[in-house]
Amino acid sequence: MNEEMTMLYEEMMRLMEEKHFSQLRELLVDTKPVDIAEAMEEMSEEAPESTIIIFRLLPKDLAAEVFSYLSTSEQLSIVDALHEKQLKNIVEELNFDDKIDFLEEMPANVVKRILKNVTEEERKLINQFLNYPEYSAGSLMTIEYIDLKKEMTVSEALQHIRTTGVDKETIYTCYVLNETRRLEGIVSLRKLVLAEAHMLIEDLMDEDLINTSTWDDQEEVADLFKKYDLMTLPVVDQEGRLVGIITIDDIVDVIEQENTEDFEKMAALLPGDEEYLDASILTMAKKRLPWLLILMISATFTGSIISRFEDVLQAVVVLAAAIPMLMDTAGNAGNQSSTLVIRGIALGEIELEDYLQVLWKEFRISLLVGLMLGLINFARMLLIVESSILVAVTVSFTLSLTVVMAKIFGGLMPIIAKKMKVDPAIMAGPLITTIVDAMALIVYFNMASLILGIH
Amino acid sequence: MNEEMTMLYEEMMRLMEEKHFSQLRELLVDTKPVDIAEAMEEMSEEAPESTIIIFRLLPKDLAAEVFSYLSTSEQLSIVDALHEKQLKNIVEELNFDDKIDFLEEMPANVVKRILKNVTEEERKLINQFLNYPEYSAGSLMTIEYIDLKKEMTVSEALQHIRTTGVDKETIYTCYVLNETRRLEGIVSLRKLVLAEAHMLIEDLMDEDLINTSTWDDQEEVADLFKKYDLMTLPVVDQEGRLVGIITIDDIVDVIEQENTEDFEKMAALLPGDEEYLDASILTMAKKRLPWLLILMISATFTGSIISRFEDVLQAVVVLAAAIPMLMDTAGNAGNQSSTLVIRGIALGEIELEDYLQVLWKEFRISLLVGLMLGLINFARMLLIVESSILVAVTVSFTLSLTVVMAKIFGGLMPIIAKKMKVDPAIMAGPLITTIVDAMALIVYFNMASLILGIH
Repeated sequence: MNEEMTMLYEEMMRLMEEKHFSQLRELLVDTKPVDIAEAMEEMSEEAPESTIIIFRLLPKDLAAEVFSYLSTSEQLSIVDALHEKQLKNIVEELNFDDKIDFLEEMPANVVKRILKNVTEEERKLINQFLNYPEYSAGSLMTIEYIDLKKEMTVSEALQHIRTTGVDKETIYTCYVLNETRRLEGIVSLRKLVLAEAHMLIEDLMDEDLINTSTWDDQEEVADLFKKYDLMTLPVVDQEGRLVGIITIDDIVDVIEQENTEDFEKMAALLPGDEEYLDASILTMAKKRLPWLLILMISATFTGSIISRFEDVLQAVVVLAAAIPMLMDTAGNAGNQSSTLVIRGIALGEIELEDYLQVLWKEFRISLLVGLMLGLINFARMLLIVESSILVAVTVSFTLSLTVVMAKIFGGLMPIIAKKMKVDPAIMAGPLITTIVDAMALIVYFNMASLILGIH
Repeated sequence: MNEEMTMLYEEMMRLMEEKHFSQLRELLVDTKPVDIAEAMEEMSEEAPESTIIIFRLLPKDLAAEVFSYLSTSEQLSIVDALHEKQLKNIVEELNFDDKIDFLEEMPANVVKRILKNVTEEERKLINQFLNYPEYSAGSLMTIEYIDLKKEMTVSEALQHIRTTGVDKETIYTCYVLNETRRLEGIVSLRKLVLAEAHMLIEDLMDEDLINTSTWDDQEEVADLFKKYDLMTLPVVDQEGRLVGIITIDDIVDVIEQENTEDFEKMAALLPGDEEYLDASILTMAKKRLPWLLILMISATFTGSIISRFEDVLQAVVVLAAAIPMLMDTAGNAGNQSSTLVIRGIALGEIELEDYLQVLWKEFRISLLVGLMLGLINFARMLLIVESSILVAVTVSFTLSLTVVMAKIFGGLMPIIAKKMKVDPAIMAGPLITTIVDAMALIVYFNMASLILGIH
């Protein structure tokens, strides 16, 4: 918590202890919902019963908003403490997309308790939305949008917005539908406000639509928002009927989610949704063990290279000392290239057909970088370690050569993964390191045999 | 380019070759500006003169929008081809924040040529904006916002928006200023449209403002947008006067920029702004060499550990074969933990005071994971490699112990970095790997001396 939040938290606790509930309620009404939620999360560790008191003090609409910002575990304990009637009120006030997010996380008995309290029609709709796959456009959308007809005039449209707008997630983009709810165009509130009152929606609306369908992946949806600087995106079914809209605030979360997933894959972790402090030890171990195991087994093959060249090592034991440096530098060099290319692919800056450009670029950079590192190491070995020239040449030449190999390999593997429809992020640090480590050692011992004349 | 873009591109090239310019112009007017920009970038490789033809065909306002999406190098070649008058038109039509972005990237002679054509007042303003540091709130803002007075009625405010709104970046959030331009509140267009015509702005406006100042870091600004689900954020000076606003579309770019920076730091790269395919070989080498060099030198210390235990290695050469596996697994295990904690800190899920929780969590996870890996390796060495029991015990016990050490170290280092006001992202893979590699070898050789009785 930052300073401001700590002050707010302490003020809330003080008012509660002194039982100044009407003052506390005033304070809450003047506080941003997300800040109330943050304070409640903090409170739940120290004084769990207080969170219920705070929550009961909130006016209905504010309570729903605060509720939507709470963690799943906090939501559960609130739900447990509420009467049927209060729960119904909160659920009614929730935005439709927050309602779905909430129901997705709740255990079956809570879902049942809540669905009992909604109309038949809403229950059907909720069940439909709960069926959209996680990470799909369908799971992100809301149904609270403004619909217009193209025969309306601007003043009729504004009147329609005034009467139906209060509960809508956004009124800044309005959707023009025909009788079968087919999406015919969109018109922004900006255009409506700036236009003459008698103009027709038909003449104002934008028909060149960007849209998505319920089953599209959320990453593609986020890419559309980024490319076209969108605020909202309509979701249509196969017949072109509008089924919902996606708003930018949810996309910001998707972008961070997708980035987290890439960070995790690039660190040899199985991606998952749980926050670090909330996840159980077992969940965390399951996330970490599989790749560690695969990479551990792979590294034993690298070890077997060392065994195979046992006699070289025994002849010139000093060669062993350079192994960590060669392995680490190869891994780091490959990792740099793969990270840059993975990121370039994720941001749409590098495409499949650019592979020759990447190859040529990595080749020249790696020559430059590899040569510099080789020279510096050569000087270090001669001047500081006082190795023999031949050993210094062996190590330094291996170093330069493996940097070139590692960078070309690291740069190309993400593109090859993408080509094979595998997530490029998998081709990052750990996997690349294991492979280029083996390369480095093979080059090293062959160089040693050759230059030092050991067989 | 995707299929749709390829079709658009080929259609444009066909119309150009057949000199059907009026048809081409019609096609362009119906195309999204960012798609025209993308096609022009593609074209600039194959037929650079065609990009100028395309650009000249665009109506003035569309031309400015397309221009704002072009890469710096393409912008430069367009500027070179335009007459003074045409350039002035484009610059006039650019949004203020796009104008600043553009001028920041242009060489001095182009900036001079452009500033010659603007009014004295605008020149002053541009110079002021060019002085805000890169990555600051000031560098993100625009001055094109709607200002209201609190004495206005809703209908007066809407009238004011109608007369001044056309050139504004957004009209959805309006800023209520007093005579000295001090920010007194904000009111959304949503509230204005849904309110009664005679109501006063004073009674509608939200006075509990979230704002930022020109020198704040863009990462903090992005955090505010994420936490409060903002669409716009006012930027005020020390006297509380409104100097500009920041809009969500620019924040989406900031989020991706900050993520890229973290990815780069975590892969031992110096962060930088250039896109992969655009950056020169020298820029790229400079980005990569420093950390590679530091890590290479550090790894030589790891190597010196091997030298120090030369006699242990010579006594039981089979021990050398396990070195890559121990080093890689330690590095990967540490890397997993540091990545999760770095990401947790970046997303605000983990704070400084949580360090004991992280320690306790990593300890339990690492015990579980380390034990599993140790057991699997023990079985592998006995059954497949047919090592002696004592060697298998030495290697497996070292493995388990280093996984525990690596995970605790990897989990805590980012928090310590944060505490010392260093970017936690620096405490990722490469640096952690180098340190835990050394730990692994020290444990290994001491275990070997102890268990195998070599001195």
